[in-house]
Amino acid sequence: MSPTLPAPLLADLTALLGPDGLLVDPAERLAYGYDNSRRQGLPLAVALPTTAAQVQGIVRRCRAAKLPIVARGRGTNTTGASVPGEDALVVSFERMNRVLAIRPGDRVAVVEPGLLNGDLQAALAPHGLFWPPDPTSAAYCSIGGNLACNAGGPRAVKYGATRDNVLAVTAVTGTGELVRFGAPTTKGASGYDLSRILIGSEGTLALIVEATLKLTPVASQRRALRALYEDVDSAAAAVARLMAQPVTPSMLEFMDGECVRLAREVGGADMPAMDGLMPRAQDAQERRPAAGALLMIEADGEAAVLDAAVAALTAAARGPGCLEVTAAPDEASRESLWAARKALSPALRTIAPGKINEDVVVPVSRIPELVAAVRATAAAQTLPIVCFGHAGNGNLHVNILYDPADAAQAARADAALEAVFDAVIALDGQVSGEHGIGLAKRELLARALSPQAMALMRAIKAQFDPDGILNPGKVLPD
Amino acid sequence: MSPTLPAPLLADLTALLGPDGLLVDPAERLAYGYDNSRRQGLPLAVALPTTAAQVQGIVRRCRAAKLPIVARGRGTNTTGASVPGEDALVVSFERMNRVLAIRPGDRVAVVEPGLLNGDLQAALAPHGLFWPPDPTSAAYCSIGGNLACNAGGPRAVKYGATRDNVLAVTAVTGTGELVRFGAPTTKGASGYDLSRILIGSEGTLALIVEATLKLTPVASQRRALRALYEDVDSAAAAVARLMAQPVTPSMLEFMDGECVRLAREVGGADMPAMDGLMPRAQDAQERRPAAGALLMIEADGEAAVLDAAVAALTAAARGPGCLEVTAAPDEASRESLWAARKALSPALRTIAPGKINEDVVVPVSRIPELVAAVRATAAAQTLPIVCFGHAGNGNLHVNILYDPADAAQAARADAALEAVFDAVIALDGQVSGEHGIGLAKRELLARALSPQAMALMRAIKAQFDPDGILNPGKVLPD
Repeated sequence: MSPTLPAPLLADLTALLGPDGLLVDPAERLAYGYDNSRRQGLPLAVALPTTAAQVQGIVRRCRAAKLPIVARGRGTNTTGASVPGEDALVVSFERMNRVLAIRPGDRVAVVEPGLLNGDLQAALAPHGLFWPPDPTSAAYCSIGGNLACNAGGPRAVKYGATRDNVLAVTAVTGTGELVRFGAPTTKGASGYDLSRILIGSEGTLALIVEATLKLTPVASQRRALRALYEDVDSAAAAVARLMAQPVTPSMLEFMDGECVRLAREVGGADMPAMDGLMPRAQDAQERRPAAGALLMIEADGEAAVLDAAVAALTAAARGPGCLEVTAAPDEASRESLWAARKALSPALRTIAPGKINEDVVVPVSRIPELVAAVRATAAAQTLPIVCFGHAGNGNLHVNILYDPADAAQAARADAALEAVFDAVIALDGQVSGEHGIGLAKRELLARALSPQAMALMRAIKAQFDPDGILNPGKVLPD
Repeated sequence: MSPTLPAPLLADLTALLGPDGLLVDPAERLAYGYDNSRRQGLPLAVALPTTAAQVQGIVRRCRAAKLPIVARGRGTNTTGASVPGEDALVVSFERMNRVLAIRPGDRVAVVEPGLLNGDLQAALAPHGLFWPPDPTSAAYCSIGGNLACNAGGPRAVKYGATRDNVLAVTAVTGTGELVRFGAPTTKGASGYDLSRILIGSEGTLALIVEATLKLTPVASQRRALRALYEDVDSAAAAVARLMAQPVTPSMLEFMDGECVRLAREVGGADMPAMDGLMPRAQDAQERRPAAGALLMIEADGEAAVLDAAVAALTAAARGPGCLEVTAAPDEASRESLWAARKALSPALRTIAPGKINEDVVVPVSRIPELVAAVRATAAAQTLPIVCFGHAGNGNLHVNILYDPADAAQAARADAALEAVFDAVIALDGQVSGEHGIGLAKRELLARALSPQAMALMRAIKAQFDPDGILNPGKVLPD
């Protein structure tokens, strides 16, 4: 018998939510206990509210019973942020998934948190509008989860991440009060901005029950470029040049040589052979210089604009160490280029059974130093480490590859991870660019921020959630 | 004898700041006691720190002495936010005015708060970059003031207001601790976002001593359009059309017919005669339908783009009630169009000696309802009320014109103001779009927000400033 809700609370929540609004069967609960971090927990029960009033009722009852609450979108996050403790109630927003309004003249959509990102984009398409956050999981992750994690994606380089694209939120605090912050206006100087503090707070401050999202007009066309470099330093320097000129790319992705090889050999992508250029796992051991990198650059805009934009981006991409810049001749080539990028994560599994995937972020101008630190770490720990990611934001996914069954390798992987974070902090970066903190990076957050900043975060958490029932143990270390 | 600092504190601050770092002469203090709200207060003294450590020292000493601190940029705000009480120390940041770094590849500038907005833009120009906030006072207002008030301006429609363009701040809290929030990266999912809560907090949470600003590439060209409409409703509908299509204007300004007449007849601007179209003060009394409005529309971008952008904006500007859309043929015509817009505020003084200038903001789609409410109010109170402003953000400057010497008129002006705010709140707007709350709108803020939201704002203020010494009495009502 797994533990379950105390009987009075069970009766009370069943009365509040109706017979099909509360899941108590262990097999059903199991499906709400994991996320993409490979962590898992079995919640006491799963509530499926359909209204903000029900959410308030849940929070008030749980507060009275001192029961932790874990808000859940679709569990696609990678940090354990939505993994419940064994003593917790999960509140899944899957039944609060409506588009409440789309107002093109205001460039806003009002939505419930359980709406899938992909469904929102489909609803917006007829209006020629989109909502910028585009994590890889966009088709099946929820807006509420995007808000909780401050989700990003490749488009963020031009259009911003989640926090930049939310105008107002309605939320239930840890005391069960319904509060609204912000307004459906793109400007405001009316008191403290409490809406954006909720974005990225991973369910620890309040449960968002409605959001007013800032929309952007869809550019009618897009064009992709692929640029090859002798080494990562040349590519990183090109990133800085690309960001210093007026045409902001709509995507600017980086892959090191090992990623290019993987995408080609394992993912089957139409990628150039980079023999002689590409780094291999043993490069690190032999301390040979790094070699080989690729940028995927995209421009979007109206037809009249694109030729000039592509010319400007091509000029910026060229420079010392640039081997070639080629334009994807058509949409099919563009898709194929992106397919190669998307094939990377699965392909990494072929190098080693274990992978630590981080999403650190540094100032764009410091990417070369970050990549150099990563390569030095790979050499020191004799482990393959590959990098790819959203270079235009300085947001790199650093993948440390190892065999978890080999205790010595696992220890070296942990040491490598620590070294990477030390480098990120020294380079004035942040420990997470878009995945968040969850359970996985709590201690790192404390290392990166000053004790005074951490103390203020704790103090502010206590104002929203005085009893500490909202997603306890996440974001802030115990 | 005006009151002055207690002797021990005077000695202590003089030791900290040096003999020329503390102003105690009443004549000198007087110059730091006003802002553009026509309110005034005489501070006990004025501190002129040159380092963050000095700011910490000032705060710690004032906290021990329970002395209020009012941070000051250049006092160009309009709400009393920088007007000190008679028991306060003013901290003026005029000597902390350095550009600490400009990094084009990162698109950031690191600055001290006393730097003038105009001086920053001049320093950025050689790099082809700018910082978007452009209040009318840009030439002589400080970055610190822009941060404190979440300053906007016409460019915000495309490039955002201050809060959208700050990546990190370093600040001294009410306990004298130095904290840094954010990082010089355009992405981050690393704990609560406490940087943006300081933007727009008007010196009530912390004193910002350094800011990392997000920069934008300067478009190489710009082109202006002038569109005339039969009535404000037609113009407001055009605003919604303009914002619903893909080309975001770099400015989108609205003037009602009375403003057009004023700009032409009083300001000497090259404006069309709108006889028969324009509303006059007596329109309201006679309840004739509103007539006459103008939009100033600007596009910016690279040369290759602009023809298409101007065509798209022209097409969107046309529609029912549109009388004509004309392009400014050259930069001189463009300047002249903007000069007319800038001449408005002074010209309003010729209608009546008194002016209540509000800067309310509503969703763009609700501008017609706001303007209708304003006209109904003008009719009900038999007072001229003219509107102009940043229509692309729904941010209108509503000017109630009256004679303060006439008690009955003054009472009607107050009643009109209340009616305008009631309309704004009913239309899901905010009581201030870019000027802020200060002393002037504290009660309105409380009326616009829920008691729960106000309570959270107070609770959060107490975490930053437990003794309530930072700009007390501003933003939050007593």
